[in-house]
Amino acid sequence: MARHVDVGDLVDRARQRQPRAVARLISLVEDASPQLRDVAAALAPHTGRAQVVGLTGSPGVGKSTTTSALVSAYRARGLRVGVLAVDPSSPFSGGALLGDRIRMQDHATDPDVFIRSMATRGHLGGMAWATPQALRVLDAAGFDVVLIETVGVGQSEVDVVALADTTLVLLAPGMGDGIQAAKAGILEIADVFVVNKADRDGAETTVRELKYMISLGRREVRGASWRQPICKTVAARAEGVEEVVAAVAEHRRWTESHGEFAERRRHRARTEVEAIALESLRARLSARHGEALDGLAGKVMAGDLDPYAAADSLIADIKAEG
Amino acid sequence: MARHVDVGDLVDRARQRQPRAVARLISLVEDASPQLRDVAAALAPHTGRAQVVGLTGSPGVGKSTTTSALVSAYRARGLRVGVLAVDPSSPFSGGALLGDRIRMQDHATDPDVFIRSMATRGHLGGMAWATPQALRVLDAAGFDVVLIETVGVGQSEVDVVALADTTLVLLAPGMGDGIQAAKAGILEIADVFVVNKADRDGAETTVRELKYMISLGRREVRGASWRQPICKTVAARAEGVEEVVAAVAEHRRWTESHGEFAERRRHRARTEVEAIALESLRARLSARHGEALDGLAGKVMAGDLDPYAAADSLIADIKAEG
Repeated sequence: MARHVDVGDLVDRARQRQPRAVARLISLVEDASPQLRDVAAALAPHTGRAQVVGLTGSPGVGKSTTTSALVSAYRARGLRVGVLAVDPSSPFSGGALLGDRIRMQDHATDPDVFIRSMATRGHLGGMAWATPQALRVLDAAGFDVVLIETVGVGQSEVDVVALADTTLVLLAPGMGDGIQAAKAGILEIADVFVVNKADRDGAETTVRELKYMISLGRREVRGASWRQPICKTVAARAEGVEEVVAAVAEHRRWTESHGEFAERRRHRARTEVEAIALESLRARLSARHGEALDGLAGKVMAGDLDPYAAADSLIADIKAEG
Repeated sequence: MARHVDVGDLVDRARQRQPRAVARLISLVEDASPQLRDVAAALAPHTGRAQVVGLTGSPGVGKSTTTSALVSAYRARGLRVGVLAVDPSSPFSGGALLGDRIRMQDHATDPDVFIRSMATRGHLGGMAWATPQALRVLDAAGFDVVLIETVGVGQSEVDVVALADTTLVLLAPGMGDGIQAAKAGILEIADVFVVNKADRDGAETTVRELKYMISLGRREVRGASWRQPICKTVAARAEGVEEVVAAVAEHRRWTESHGEFAERRRHRARTEVEAIALESLRARLSARHGEALDGLAGKVMAGDLDPYAAADSLIADIKAEG
């Protein structure tokens, strides 16, 4: 039995700041509900206002703690804050782990904070497809700042972070040095660096290496003349968090005055449309053409067919559809 | 001027173990050369023999060192070994960093070892698309074992590792505990765990936490009754590497006797065909429909169109193509 939802009413209620309506809309988006398109259409006129801050780094650098500290800092300014925590889906964890949830409970009773863990369904491009839609929900619901937190070294994560107006890359001493960060490919997506756990041994070494890596890569970094600042924090004690907020604001001003702000948002919209189109095509390949795909895979396995010829055959099937 | 390559001759020479022919074929694959399809067709009849071992873990756990030690161990058995190192593309590093290259130079003069860093071109699904083709080159060229090393926490990396017959997940003490590993979503893809840097403080804690995490997730792990072993290594001194090789062999035997070996290879072929089809469709969206996409993105940005309606419009364009 199809469960009908009055999408227009739900969007109205989300815009009246009802957390349950916001949660319900994100669920519709995340579950790829049949009403997803209605939701997207109803949200569109109300989007474009939220400031989007991406936050990424290797496991263990303290992303959730930093996110929580930033939420507090923005709340202290009277701003409403949404958080999207993008974790790779895990049969082990069922998404986010207990620790983060506990950490985030500082904000659990605050009606002007909305926190959501995004499951990613384990398919290619899952995050690139669902996260921007959840962002649209929070944006339309009037959240002033949306923090997108992601475990960050993979391409999908990088794609998600690329949606942000400003991207924070977190490092921590003893988590591997600057070279490891370069290796993970996250240096070049940073607008602001945060060296967290700065009270630990090795923090100065991490900062020094980072400066060196930045100097090497300078010309390659997007927005050539923006000087990526390095903030030192001890997020667990909220130390240095004001400096991060100031750096984000400074970056926002800089991008606005250099035309990059609109450029990023255009890129975000383009990426989003492209991801949805790809996801739609992917779903057709997997579901509608599952049997054809299995047959082709068998031939490829046996060496009777090469994978490009097999892919051509699949695409021809899609085009032939009514 | 188009540079014509005699693909049949190149494949013949690769099969005669000429490293330059192997390198040239991988370049054709990686650069998405117009002759890519000819290459794929010429390789297909010669594929399916190589044992594929995936190796993943967070930055800093010692993946490259472990890979190098495994190469030595397989070489000591008289096997020919190929290595594909999948790094996120980085304007900073231009792919793999110097350190790894130096480490791998132990094998630089060995004609029966072939090492290649795969650039990933920074687009969604880039690795999922190019890496299996490079694997086909090494397979057809008669490498007995192919090690695929990847920075592993992102979905794309997980997809790549899922191509392997056996997947090793590396952890190290002090790199964040077992919970961090679970968070990164890599526990459930492991066939064999390797706790590297096992001479360091905290190694036993890491092993203990890992055992606990494994016990929690037991039922969820693919191949319900395969007991994921935990090997302790100090890869830099080659300690424990023989145990890893033994565990890989044991896993191979187990998958073969339980029908999972063929199942995984079928899955690999299916994933590969699907990824190529998607990449092909993606390229059409970006290039051929770039202008249409920009126009749609502008409307989405302004809130005049929702991204789903925009994506539908793009897909209709593709279908309408001759």
